[in-house]
Amino acid sequence: MDLLKKTIEEEGVVLSPSVLKVDGFLNHKIDPILLDEIGKEFAGAFRNLGITKVLTIESGGIVPAFTTALYLNVPVVFAKKAEPSTMRNPKTCRVHSFTKNTDYTICIEQNTIHEGDRVLFIDDFLANGQAYLGIKKLVGDCHARLVASGFCIEKAWQPGHSILKQDGFPFKVLASIRHMSPEEGISWNYDTAETE
Amino acid sequence: MDLLKKTIEEEGVVLSPSVLKVDGFLNHKIDPILLDEIGKEFAGAFRNLGITKVLTIESGGIVPAFTTALYLNVPVVFAKKAEPSTMRNPKTCRVHSFTKNTDYTICIEQNTIHEGDRVLFIDDFLANGQAYLGIKKLVGDCHARLVASGFCIEKAWQPGHSILKQDGFPFKVLASIRHMSPEEGISWNYDTAETE
Repeated sequence: MDLLKKTIEEEGVVLSPSVLKVDGFLNHKIDPILLDEIGKEFAGAFRNLGITKVLTIESGGIVPAFTTALYLNVPVVFAKKAEPSTMRNPKTCRVHSFTKNTDYTICIEQNTIHEGDRVLFIDDFLANGQAYLGIKKLVGDCHARLVASGFCIEKAWQPGHSILKQDGFPFKVLASIRHMSPEEGISWNYDTAETE
Repeated sequence: MDLLKKTIEEEGVVLSPSVLKVDGFLNHKIDPILLDEIGKEFAGAFRNLGITKVLTIESGGIVPAFTTALYLNVPVVFAKKAEPSTMRNPKTCRVHSFTKNTDYTICIEQNTIHEGDRVLFIDDFLANGQAYLGIKKLVGDCHARLVASGFCIEKAWQPGHSILKQDGFPFKVLASIRHMSPEEGISWNYDTAETE
């Protein structure tokens, strides 16, 4: 997706060979036009899959998941990282974060995803694929089906891409980074980024 | 705002005289049509104030703040409740939560709100007004101005309404609850809810 790649090149900051700072437009301060376009792009890619719910994890995935849901005209659910006091029947799953080297729990209220739902998972980053695996388990626990996934940015050298590919469900990455460094900047992965 | 009140009456659950569960449409599972209308309503109310940024706190305020920003065509910033490793110059403020009886820290990256910015604060609930006070301090620390606030739902008997009224800046509440209980349901506060 050219607009996203252009914005990353102009406003993203490569802090290290594994950390890209995108909080000026994607996951802290947000450019509404860009996020609207991201939603349109994901919705277009998955329009024919009979999606009934979009699911994400707070908080970086919330806006791209919302704009996708708006274009697909289906509800969006964001899994919480802490169990709110108002939840009555939470479904939970532990997720490991390699970046922070800790585990965290994601949870959704049981009745937000139903048996028979066809779920699209949207997130800001695909890296190690652990969030995807947690979401897949949660969706399964609700007797629903995870039918596709979309990621704004992937770090293609990390295991996430292979994990998704092996699962065989459709997924789309809008900006696939082959490698990056503070000195040399970003190299895009043109061959696979937009074709999944 | 009739659509929001109708949705609260049909899908909200009064868990106690102070806790309203709205996670079926507002802050966990989200109805995109309703949230789009909420953004349109806030944007219409504050269109003439020269707003340059919308600001909220993760994660319940993110979507109403985003849709408002989309209609105003300005960026939205969501203050984080934990400082991400990628933040380099965070501005922080401690906020007390009466609901959970704990303090938490909200933080924004320094350069996301500039000197001269005219900021609109959007949140899902107005209750004790502590989040508002924290946001006001953060905005002041950035040498910007908080010019207006919008809240989807207020619990009008709690101190937030008076705190905002005393400050004198415009604010709008879309659904003002006078009182509520599991037995009697919700009484709306018709006289002040839509006129601030």
